[in-house]
Amino acid sequence: MPRYKLTLEYDGTPFVGWQRQENGLSVQQVLEEAVKAFCGEDVTVFGSGRTDAGVHAIGQVAHITLNKSHPADTVRRAINQHLIPHLVAVLDVEDVADDFHARFSAESRSYRYRIVNRRARLALDRNRAWHVPLPLDAGAMHEAAQSLLGKHDFTTFRSVKCQAKSPVKTLDEVSVERRGEEVWLYTRAQSFMHNQVRAIVGSLKMVGEGKWPVGQIAEALAACERTACGPTAPACGLYFDTVTFGARRYGPDGKPD
Amino acid sequence: MPRYKLTLEYDGTPFVGWQRQENGLSVQQVLEEAVKAFCGEDVTVFGSGRTDAGVHAIGQVAHITLNKSHPADTVRRAINQHLIPHLVAVLDVEDVADDFHARFSAESRSYRYRIVNRRARLALDRNRAWHVPLPLDAGAMHEAAQSLLGKHDFTTFRSVKCQAKSPVKTLDEVSVERRGEEVWLYTRAQSFMHNQVRAIVGSLKMVGEGKWPVGQIAEALAACERTACGPTAPACGLYFDTVTFGARRYGPDGKPD
Repeated sequence: MPRYKLTLEYDGTPFVGWQRQENGLSVQQVLEEAVKAFCGEDVTVFGSGRTDAGVHAIGQVAHITLNKSHPADTVRRAINQHLIPHLVAVLDVEDVADDFHARFSAESRSYRYRIVNRRARLALDRNRAWHVPLPLDAGAMHEAAQSLLGKHDFTTFRSVKCQAKSPVKTLDEVSVERRGEEVWLYTRAQSFMHNQVRAIVGSLKMVGEGKWPVGQIAEALAACERTACGPTAPACGLYFDTVTFGARRYGPDGKPD
Repeated sequence: MPRYKLTLEYDGTPFVGWQRQENGLSVQQVLEEAVKAFCGEDVTVFGSGRTDAGVHAIGQVAHITLNKSHPADTVRRAINQHLIPHLVAVLDVEDVADDFHARFSAESRSYRYRIVNRRARLALDRNRAWHVPLPLDAGAMHEAAQSLLGKHDFTTFRSVKCQAKSPVKTLDEVSVERRGEEVWLYTRAQSFMHNQVRAIVGSLKMVGEGKWPVGQIAEALAACERTACGPTAPACGLYFDTVTFGARRYGPDGKPD
């Protein structure tokens, strides 16, 4: 059956998150309804990552399987048409093999976290960034973050609601840099646990404000203890960035080889 | 009497514009109400430029005159406190001499115009940029824009609603550049007429799409005829950027020397 890979941008502010829930509108629901409106088919839209309420996406990836085939460009335009007036846009649609799975085939995921570091409250960037009024030392945050690179037990930076089987994850990249009055974090891994990026950012902010020494991030990680973590950063600063897929990384049942 | 210069950021989307109007909420009104809530004084907030509905500001400047003196930092914090939940932020407050006038003392004003130039509709940038799906040649737009530099009769790029006495203005700077999938225009002058920047951007877009030759901007300008102008660009892409004030440029009556 024809399968399509969708690349998505969305503003997470009005949504309860990626995943369908009883208590409000999700990104998944508006996409599934747009597909239904386009071709009449009831589909499940599988995403690469289940973003929380308020978390944005620049390049979320999802897939759908239809019974009837359409040109990829028709699928893109039709879903976009039916997404109006929601703050979700389909950036790209590609035909993919029927063993492609947005979640299980993903080789790596990256997130960006945006902090506006100034005294004044936010107007243009309300709900698009975390407002931190105290001056942040981005260099110290970057240095501290490097201790998180590689394979670790990330229990410290794991939400109590996290359903992952293991707290062991491998962080392939993490950087913090200042851009004018903004401080941006970038991080990449095969996968992340629930709230992991926001917990890391919240702890790095303690370093940036000088409330924690640089070495306390490594100590917090080693503690494997949720109470060693700083306050979790808010959802509004987090952007699900990109997902990469390698060739032949997935089996015919949609599970990893 | 104590006078304060306010530097302001706002999201123009929910407002009828800068200026108080009967038909809806203006930026001026929410600022005047915030001042009243802070110190009980009825003030007029004078702005450097009267932005239209939907137009944003990064560095609008305004001034207020109070009967009672307060530290500038107190004024800033108190107004910001009373601006919640509006999408307006006071970035900075300075004590100024009582001949400072946000409008009449301004030596130059700059605007930025933001275009997102991609096929897909906007999600994160809805109401923050003009979505232009056809590929734009930013180099051609920049070249065409240079013919607008200097002192000209800008009747072609003047709104029919414009109340300025003369259509002669001097454009000190104008540039167009591509930044990834975005195209930005920057322009600076002592003052602009109503809709002038949006009319210019709308015409430059015709050049960018290849529908007008580069030379047509100069021809349109020379025609001094509103019908020679391209369709006016939407408000949502326009940002009132900065205002500069020279020393001793204003007389004691608040009018230019």
